[in-house]
Amino acid sequence: MTATAPAPEVLVDAPAGTPSGLLDAFWDYDDALLSNDVARLDDAFARGDDTIRGDGTTTVVGWEAISRFRAARTDLPKRRVTAVHVRVLADTVAVVVADVASGTGSLGLQTQVWQRDSDRWRVVVAHVTAPEKPLDSATWRVVGAPLVPATADDGPLAGETVAVKDLFAVRGQVIGGGVPEYADAGEPQADHAPAVDALLAAGAAVTGISRTDQLAYSISGQNSRTGTPRNAVDADRIPGGSSSGSASATARGWTSIGLGTDTAGSIRVPSAYQGLWGLRTTHGLVSTTGVLPLAQSFDTVGWMTRDPDLLVRVTDAVVLAGARAGIVTTARSETRSDPAAVSTARAFVTAPALTALAVPSSAVGTDRAAAALDAAREPLPGDLGAWFAAFRTVQAHEAWQNHGDWITAHPGALGADVAGRFADAARVTDADAEAARAVLDTARAVVRDWIGDRVLVLPTVADRAPGLGADAATVDAHRAATLRLTSLASFAGLPAVAVPIGRSTGAPWGSVCLVGAAGTDRALVRTARALA
Amino acid sequence: MTATAPAPEVLVDAPAGTPSGLLDAFWDYDDALLSNDVARLDDAFARGDDTIRGDGTTTVVGWEAISRFRAARTDLPKRRVTAVHVRVLADTVAVVVADVASGTGSLGLQTQVWQRDSDRWRVVVAHVTAPEKPLDSATWRVVGAPLVPATADDGPLAGETVAVKDLFAVRGQVIGGGVPEYADAGEPQADHAPAVDALLAAGAAVTGISRTDQLAYSISGQNSRTGTPRNAVDADRIPGGSSSGSASATARGWTSIGLGTDTAGSIRVPSAYQGLWGLRTTHGLVSTTGVLPLAQSFDTVGWMTRDPDLLVRVTDAVVLAGARAGIVTTARSETRSDPAAVSTARAFVTAPALTALAVPSSAVGTDRAAAALDAAREPLPGDLGAWFAAFRTVQAHEAWQNHGDWITAHPGALGADVAGRFADAARVTDADAEAARAVLDTARAVVRDWIGDRVLVLPTVADRAPGLGADAATVDAHRAATLRLTSLASFAGLPAVAVPIGRSTGAPWGSVCLVGAAGTDRALVRTARALA
Repeated sequence: MTATAPAPEVLVDAPAGTPSGLLDAFWDYDDALLSNDVARLDDAFARGDDTIRGDGTTTVVGWEAISRFRAARTDLPKRRVTAVHVRVLADTVAVVVADVASGTGSLGLQTQVWQRDSDRWRVVVAHVTAPEKPLDSATWRVVGAPLVPATADDGPLAGETVAVKDLFAVRGQVIGGGVPEYADAGEPQADHAPAVDALLAAGAAVTGISRTDQLAYSISGQNSRTGTPRNAVDADRIPGGSSSGSASATARGWTSIGLGTDTAGSIRVPSAYQGLWGLRTTHGLVSTTGVLPLAQSFDTVGWMTRDPDLLVRVTDAVVLAGARAGIVTTARSETRSDPAAVSTARAFVTAPALTALAVPSSAVGTDRAAAALDAAREPLPGDLGAWFAAFRTVQAHEAWQNHGDWITAHPGALGADVAGRFADAARVTDADAEAARAVLDTARAVVRDWIGDRVLVLPTVADRAPGLGADAATVDAHRAATLRLTSLASFAGLPAVAVPIGRSTGAPWGSVCLVGAAGTDRALVRTARALA
Repeated sequence: MTATAPAPEVLVDAPAGTPSGLLDAFWDYDDALLSNDVARLDDAFARGDDTIRGDGTTTVVGWEAISRFRAARTDLPKRRVTAVHVRVLADTVAVVVADVASGTGSLGLQTQVWQRDSDRWRVVVAHVTAPEKPLDSATWRVVGAPLVPATADDGPLAGETVAVKDLFAVRGQVIGGGVPEYADAGEPQADHAPAVDALLAAGAAVTGISRTDQLAYSISGQNSRTGTPRNAVDADRIPGGSSSGSASATARGWTSIGLGTDTAGSIRVPSAYQGLWGLRTTHGLVSTTGVLPLAQSFDTVGWMTRDPDLLVRVTDAVVLAGARAGIVTTARSETRSDPAAVSTARAFVTAPALTALAVPSSAVGTDRAAAALDAAREPLPGDLGAWFAAFRTVQAHEAWQNHGDWITAHPGALGADVAGRFADAARVTDADAEAARAVLDTARAVVRDWIGDRVLVLPTVADRAPGLGADAATVDAHRAATLRLTSLASFAGLPAVAVPIGRSTGAPWGSVCLVGAAGTDRALVRTARALA
């Protein structure tokens, strides 16, 4: 144990007779915290299943779980202790309450309940309130109260709040695209994107502009420049992206609606990782005007909620607003405002070859849902590997067409992972892209014909979210399998809903995905809701 | 005791043999919290000087102090318990850790250490982490990471962050003026106010737009529509205004610079209440273009910091930027960029009649500072009561000219206190204002002549901040005495610095004010810094 003396200006409020070993243990623990000395921190906590560590967003119970949580942390505390209050409650029980301050003087608090075992004092309960910040900058670029008020008081979304992914135009704000240099060079937008307008007109207010993966070209939710929004369900796992900030803000209860985009899974993946309901709309159904593109052949607007009823209400509001504005092309029944005119699906299909892409613990949820829906088990009518390769080729080609010039002019603006992906994209030739488009034209027709008026049931993702500290090989393998699953709706241009079918705490984890016919988005979310 | 059973969905993680009275006491306490039943809460806490209640921003020690803190609170917790973890550590000692969730699902944590005394279990330590919010909407209207980046990387304020009072134009943002209807009807501003531009050009970034009293016509910091920013020094006292949000954000360590305005004390009062250094600039020195006016004869731009060196650096940056832009008229030495050209004051004066307006505990700090500076004790050369009455008349007349039409068109938009002040202002006739202006023309000349090249030392405010729950008569008496003190620099158009001379915790409380000659702002902040 390395006992560290407090700085002289620390107020120590300890009664006479405070056991000497207690304060030594406290200062040693504090020193280990600041240096993220995991071994010493582990030793400072009482072994056993009863030990508790909580910070308001995550309560971890049991020594082993606390050790795992700590090992996965990437954000070191940056604060100093300014006052220590000690209360000795029994021979072997004491409480230490420590006031802490960040470098700028913002304040936090740490309480530890200590118990003396045979050889030393150890923490049995730790409660941490980190020094406050004006905003969680890993989740938000800008936030307001509200940032943009609703334009109607009494619409179907009155009282709801929206996190807008940093790809959408919001009047007066720049579009940041997940890259600080991009935001800094941007001009304030003159108009809201139509999707934002539709939500405002339906009575929802915009709370803020939420973080995205860099130029939306990732599904991890990790942004090397702006940070990683916290996964609200599993604080030591990645949040999923690229609609990461909208997903986290909604899962954490800061907003009721997360507005995002989905090119290759960017709504569905974070929804699955954070227990949300999420809709990727039919390609072309909702205007992408005012939305920074990634790959126009697949880019769609979508939204996430904690509640399936709200998912239905948002879908109704945006699709009907789009229909009124003439920017929606869809099945006739979908544009009627009478919800009774929208009929849910009666027939379902599932493909064992898709389900097999998921790990067993994830596949089981899909199998159960498929069985409950009496889904027909059918082989996939084509070569998903070839289709996926063609999808990646076209996505990469369009991504480079959209952003290559800017990326070339701004070396170092992107993190290694996204920069590498764009570097690969730069090597896709026009001829490669043309050949891949031909493959996808066929694939789209085959998949649409196969699903028909039915609803396809498949795993949303291949596995639960990788841990924050997972090695690259694990993450890449997971990513490759997940993208094969999500690509199907993407290249077919079909609507897809992520349906949470479990909770990480206690309940089995999982998310199942429903893919419907083009233009049946309002029906699809109702079909999904019936699974709640 | 009213034992309240937990809702069935609450996870109760309690060991066999948990004393039955403990959980009863916990649920009773939780019920009392939700209903703000102060008597029951008082009874739940152990009597004595050792009891602790902390929430990260305020740690209150002792049963009586906790009771007072609680009685002053106006914000009721709105959350439910979702899980309870009980750990029994000795016969009479237990810990309860409770996960809580707001109505939208955002999460918080409460830890209580309970001790059994002769008749029941009572709390000896309570640690509360309230459910997280995307922003503190009482302090901020909008906040970003940053909201506006610096326009220079290497200026004298590089790395500094600014809270901009919601009266200043920020490009792309509306001006809110502390009134939601005003913000909602506003158009995004095309350009930054010159004062904002100067800070950005010096390398500071804008973190957010901070709350103000309604139309800045108050010094309390309490806004009936948007809430009361927390006083960072005394959580159960008012923050001071009208630059309330900028002061709180800076005092809480969220920004390093609070940009505000000062008409009748709106920089100096919150600085005094929250232990900040604050400068009201010479009238006319810093452009008020792009700033919502209150009373143009007295409106000035100013700034607050936690650190006197930064106060000097900000003052240099803004005044020199203004001089370059030709919008500053000041002493020649002040516009030279060489700091050595700026000489600090050599002679000081103090007026016992001014010091006597403060309560003794506040006056003592002024007397000490005046003695240390060897200030000449001189009578005030005129009738402060008559001057103050004229000042209030002209301020009211101009305030109504500026805002009367809008207020008339928006009944109910203002809280009772500010609405009442404007209603009085509406009754000021042009003739009243003209007569008052004549009084002030003389007063200005007399005061400027009296101070000359010296620096006047006086109390910044009459007393420490009133408690949040103080009765109206107390607040009004305090306000009247404080405004007499602050009005002097206002009607004389002189620069004034609030100098913190104590801290509420342990050290004696206090703020002393230095008033200098017109245009000597850079010298004045250096004179003030020497008191640190």
